[in-house]
Amino acid sequence: MSDSLLKRLDLGRGDKWDSMLQGISDVAALPDPTGIVTYAMELDSDLDLYRVSCPIGVLLVIFEARPEVVVNIAALAIKSGNAAILKGGKESNRTTLLLSDAISAGLAQTAVPEKYIQTIQTRTEVASLLELDDYIDLVIPRGSNSLVKSIQNSTRIPVMGHADGLCSVYLDESADKAKAIRVAVDSKIDYPSACNAAETLVVHESLLQAVWPAVAKALLEANVRLLCDSASLSALDSLSPLPSNFKTHVRHSKPEDYTTEHLSLVISVVSVPSLQSAIEFINAHSSHHTDSIVTENDQAASTFCRAVDSAGTFINASTRFADGFRYGFGTEVGISTGRIHARGPVGLEGLVIYKYMMKSKGPQGHIVGEFGAGKKQFKHQRIQATTVPF
Amino acid sequence: MSDSLLKRLDLGRGDKWDSMLQGISDVAALPDPTGIVTYAMELDSDLDLYRVSCPIGVLLVIFEARPEVVVNIAALAIKSGNAAILKGGKESNRTTLLLSDAISAGLAQTAVPEKYIQTIQTRTEVASLLELDDYIDLVIPRGSNSLVKSIQNSTRIPVMGHADGLCSVYLDESADKAKAIRVAVDSKIDYPSACNAAETLVVHESLLQAVWPAVAKALLEANVRLLCDSASLSALDSLSPLPSNFKTHVRHSKPEDYTTEHLSLVISVVSVPSLQSAIEFINAHSSHHTDSIVTENDQAASTFCRAVDSAGTFINASTRFADGFRYGFGTEVGISTGRIHARGPVGLEGLVIYKYMMKSKGPQGHIVGEFGAGKKQFKHQRIQATTVPF
Repeated sequence: MSDSLLKRLDLGRGDKWDSMLQGISDVAALPDPTGIVTYAMELDSDLDLYRVSCPIGVLLVIFEARPEVVVNIAALAIKSGNAAILKGGKESNRTTLLLSDAISAGLAQTAVPEKYIQTIQTRTEVASLLELDDYIDLVIPRGSNSLVKSIQNSTRIPVMGHADGLCSVYLDESADKAKAIRVAVDSKIDYPSACNAAETLVVHESLLQAVWPAVAKALLEANVRLLCDSASLSALDSLSPLPSNFKTHVRHSKPEDYTTEHLSLVISVVSVPSLQSAIEFINAHSSHHTDSIVTENDQAASTFCRAVDSAGTFINASTRFADGFRYGFGTEVGISTGRIHARGPVGLEGLVIYKYMMKSKGPQGHIVGEFGAGKKQFKHQRIQATTVPF
Repeated sequence: MSDSLLKRLDLGRGDKWDSMLQGISDVAALPDPTGIVTYAMELDSDLDLYRVSCPIGVLLVIFEARPEVVVNIAALAIKSGNAAILKGGKESNRTTLLLSDAISAGLAQTAVPEKYIQTIQTRTEVASLLELDDYIDLVIPRGSNSLVKSIQNSTRIPVMGHADGLCSVYLDESADKAKAIRVAVDSKIDYPSACNAAETLVVHESLLQAVWPAVAKALLEANVRLLCDSASLSALDSLSPLPSNFKTHVRHSKPEDYTTEHLSLVISVVSVPSLQSAIEFINAHSSHHTDSIVTENDQAASTFCRAVDSAGTFINASTRFADGFRYGFGTEVGISTGRIHARGPVGLEGLVIYKYMMKSKGPQGHIVGEFGAGKKQFKHQRIQATTVPF
């Protein structure tokens, strides 16, 4: 077992246990995401319609071998009123079972059913559950793109995909050199194995002489390997003296480097002739997770944010900010690169849906046959309300 | 070809053409559903995050042989900024093609690409498109439950299901007799082939003598056939004189009647001993579309609305109100019985998702490495904003 896996499995390391418990308190302290009115309309005198947030139902969450995730997800599920079935990576099976027993013991002391949060241990169980689209309402696989795709292939249940993160930083024509260095380096090295770490640096060709070599130097000093296209590679001839790790850490890129999630101290570099080319390159190669522009030009920033088709588009900020805690959600279930229901970091709000409740207060109730041409017309008057009054 | 199909295909009938055109103007007049900020947070001084609504991308919409739907959906797609590929029922292929040509000709005169709305004609094309999960973002099948399931089985693309409607009306212990009759009759007969028509009447057993016979009489007078359980059937012995169509229109129910979408002047009737039993019966048998309670008891109404797990739960109102136009959305793409993204009648709001845009206005840009224990802390201060200021 690798050191890093052992470290992930050991809940006794550092402050992991305490911070896991703190996470429960944090989630408990968040506002209730259910029961919130998001649309209220008087359809007719004495006929009021309310759209109100409510739990989705039963969640199936599949995640890596990180035992504290059992507790995080259980807290989010309970807080949002969803039952959940959890499957962690097999290396954490025994810890998962112990935590699950502790959660059940806790639930047994409440009005919530003891079996509200359940864990399963095997892929066979996952396969059986994926057939139960009448009973399970949402599958949330955290993990590799291939895991997500294989689940999407084998179920009718909706899947909220937490797929790969192929994030880019684009250094625009007008980029400030110091910002370019800070944002590129932080996006790459702050936590290289995270999905919101940058994998690709897109450089406007006008920066190749004045800015790019300084960025490259900073990345090399941070021990980052650079996979460069021809133009960005030649531009590094101007580095003098050559950084000591230049020979081992710089090579010509291959096309597949630009669709690879390196998850380590490696970054692919490409030069482009224009903002438009940068946007097209990113839309064609990124995983639509988070992409950042470094620029002093407001128009370029605005265009980039709108035209780059990703869950997060940032201006002069590290891609690493794409995270539920940093966004102010308290915590997250994961980050979605899908385009329905929830996109980007998914917090409690991503675990609810809504229903419509309607009440006739009229003396005869309300029927549709009384409306139409030559009959009653709908009033459609907005009601100001945050909760359902009945 | 049946008369009713011919009628559906003929855009020249009655005011169909004019009302189709009016629908375009109505959609055009709706507020733009994109560009709306739904969450805005200052993460740090000079670091602002905005969640802003945006189009989903490319929609694949499959629907019945109703040619005006091509125009309705095209209007909704264009208004919400989504490209769309449309497939109507094969009986309407030629009208679909003509309408599609007209739409392209119109688009050619605008900044929107001519091919923004496309139509396809065959199931083979649908099958090929269902494999393109990298390019198509959402499939919206309107039609039978089996159509929806077969599509869910054969694609990784998310499916927003517009499945069957098995709606119920529950006559509670405290139901007012006149309201019971009005709501039951309207829910059944206003438009029997619609998905929001009632298919099941659930009757509290305390009403079997005093209220149910009057409701049954009204339904029989409206030519509705009644499929009754033993208790509700015996209770009709008290009808005197027996309605003339009693013998042909009343029979003992079979278990499968309660999971059948009759789509005609037929209703299944079941008696239950309590509100709780009614809720359990509905949750077990309905398609989670729309269910209504007739009651004078506020507590029962409130419990019913919360415990019945359907997209719409109504009090003293016909199930037929479940409709995008009646809800005040202007129009609808369909009605979703799914539990993610959009539930119930789906209007323009159901055709958008959001992205997060973030801007650092700081002199050095913003990096994550400066935050954490002993370093900067996140500010997480709500910003009041309805649009993105950059």
